[in-house]
Amino acid sequence: MAVSCQLGDSGESVNRKRRSSPRRGRPIKALFFDVDGVLTDGRIYLAGDGKEFKVFDTKDGHGTRKAIAAGLKVAWISGRTSPATSARAKDLGVHACIQGQHEKRAPYERLCRRWRLHPRETAAIGDDEPDLPMLEAAGFSACPADATPAARKAAQVVLKRAGGRGAAREFIEMVLALNGKERIVKRKP
Amino acid sequence: MAVSCQLGDSGESVNRKRRSSPRRGRPIKALFFDVDGVLTDGRIYLAGDGKEFKVFDTKDGHGTRKAIAAGLKVAWISGRTSPATSARAKDLGVHACIQGQHEKRAPYERLCRRWRLHPRETAAIGDDEPDLPMLEAAGFSACPADATPAARKAAQVVLKRAGGRGAAREFIEMVLALNGKERIVKRKP
Amino acid sequence: MAVSCQLGDSGESVNRKRRSSPRRGRPIKALFFDVDGVLTDGRIYLAGDGKEFKVFDTKDGHGTRKAIAAGLKVAWISGRTSPATSARAKDLGVHACIQGQHEKRAPYERLCRRWRLHPRETAAIGDDEPDLPMLEAAGFSACPADATPAARKAAQVVLKRAGGRGAAREFIEMVLALNGKERIVKRKP
Amino acid sequence: MAVSCQLGDSGESVNRKRRSSPRRGRPIKALFFDVDGVLTDGRIYLAGDGKEFKVFDTKDGHGTRKAIAAGLKVAWISGRTSPATSARAKDLGVHACIQGQHEKRAPYERLCRRWRLHPRETAAIGDDEPDLPMLEAAGFSACPADATPAARKAAQVVLKRAGGRGAAREFIEMVLALNGKERIVKRKP
Repeated sequence: MAVSCQLGDSGESVNRKRRSSPRRGRPIKALFFDVDGVLTDGRIYLAGDGKEFKVFDTKDGHGTRKAIAAGLKVAWISGRTSPATSARAKDLGVHACIQGQHEKRAPYERLCRRWRLHPRETAAIGDDEPDLPMLEAAGFSACPADATPAARKAAQVVLKRAGGRGAAREFIEMVLALNGKERIVKRKP
Repeated sequence: MAVSCQLGDSGESVNRKRRSSPRRGRPIKALFFDVDGVLTDGRIYLAGDGKEFKVFDTKDGHGTRKAIAAGLKVAWISGRTSPATSARAKDLGVHACIQGQHEKRAPYERLCRRWRLHPRETAAIGDDEPDLPMLEAAGFSACPADATPAARKAAQVVLKRAGGRGAAREFIEMVLALNGKERIVKRKP
Repeated sequence: MAVSCQLGDSGESVNRKRRSSPRRGRPIKALFFDVDGVLTDGRIYLAGDGKEFKVFDTKDGHGTRKAIAAGLKVAWISGRTSPATSARAKDLGVHACIQGQHEKRAPYERLCRRWRLHPRETAAIGDDEPDLPMLEAAGFSACPADATPAARKAAQVVLKRAGGRGAAREFIEMVLALNGKERIVKRKP
Repeated sequence: MAVSCQLGDSGESVNRKRRSSPRRGRPIKALFFDVDGVLTDGRIYLAGDGKEFKVFDTKDGHGTRKAIAAGLKVAWISGRTSPATSARAKDLGVHACIQGQHEKRAPYERLCRRWRLHPRETAAIGDDEPDLPMLEAAGFSACPADATPAARKAAQVVLKRAGGRGAAREFIEMVLALNGKERIVKRKP
């Protein structure tokens, strides 16, 4: 069953498609994030001496703390290796921060096994071609508003907000709401 | 009495609601600011060596100086602790800069007592869930255009400008105008 | 005589008003720039150790070089004092870079005397209240699209582009075009 | 033959004009990039101690790697000299990174000779007046959405995305698609 809706003025994100019976009420237990372009706006600040800044968003940070407080596992998987990413992940209490992995399927599957989770119990967010395996495997998948065409095609939901500008927070709030709603649904006879 | 108006092309900010008889002509004597997402655009610039940049706005700075020159007390209350915030607060002559306070009600109330002010005599601006107690207690409250839904709901006014991009200046000019008008009103027989 | 036109889709900037007989064919010989909010987008990047970054625009830089090559004098007058501003001014060959001047009328008039110029022979661009004396005295004045209401009211022209995002380039090209046109007009019998 | 089309809601870039019989099916073998305003958004982050940051985009980086993997030569030609540019070029495996060249025709022609390529076999992207010789000589030329009027006039295609915000990626994908299509066309009897 494919579900499709348009981005309206009401600020709703685009739910471009739903694969057949998404997750069947199984709650999401882990969140997987690409870093550049998702938790940042994709910009890399470089100095000549090799120093590098990355820019993270406070609202995304508060959302991450909420997700962890709600019992969700949180993993970051990045193609680049940057000590700034490690520093931010540690600051927020992220459970796994894996860097230097251009091919993301392997670390994604390794973490699923470690946490004894079925891919259907995970949600993933990414914005470019290296994230596709993760987006295709996860039970719920999303991409920022400014993702590449390939990521927009692969993700179930195109978010309203751009990478580093609230996309991660929107993704987290959506998963928390889905989990909540599903539980309510399950309670019904 | 609830007052409601829409954001028009005229550039007016959205006065989403007014609680019953706001402040009854009592002038605002102190301004309370959240920092990340209000005085900045919420972005945190991180290097791997733990160095952190924050980005403040010149127009907000000029507004802060105007507020202080007009006799208002100014307080910043931040969840994070950043020496950049202290440096900017000192540069502008802010009266109180309190950091590392995720729960903002306590420092807000402490400052009200120290300055012998009724909450009705304060105005507060914040953009996310930790700011809600402050927004709910103050006599006048606002949030930037890009605040979270929870802050937009709690604040009396949703400003036209985003955090770090003029929201603080707009908030200050609004309070100065409200104070001015009230005085004019009070002078009337 | 007041001239007024609207911002159209054609990308023309808003020529909000013209004072009586602007400059009467006298060409502009010097350009005066405010720095924060005009040559930058008003953002000040602060680290805890007092280090400060400012952000300049390449296209503005190319425009400045064009203005100097065309024989115009160029002055920067800034309220703040920042070594980054000095470094950029030196890099571009700016003739005068005056900092730490919140009151800008005095340095503006001093430079006019030094360069033996009538204010009518100068053009000024600013975005906030401290720039008003300069905007009001100059023969031609403009402000960025994101200037404060006071600057928008004082400037003859509200530019299409924002501070640090091409406003300075647009201002320079406008002056070069005005100078060129006036010369053509003067050649006519 | 001039081809002209409008920027539509479909997100297509503006193909403003095509010179007579562009490239006649000859595939593009090398890409030439201006740096400031194309691979960056034109902003130069300056500290007082002469330190300079430049900001590159992850999606552009992934596109550059794709172009190189597809066998294309990649050259960066910059008016400014910045060690950050060298660092990024090296990180991405760019074949030639030439800096401090305000006049770009000479290095462009030198590289064409070195790589034994006819200008028709090159594609170039630039955003300002110093880039015009390169844009006019190349077989295919484009400029970012926020390029100067002169570059918009000289380039065959005005891209949908701005400099440092995906223009380079859009340019690369366009060349890869053109190359692919032309090959398909050539296979036809």
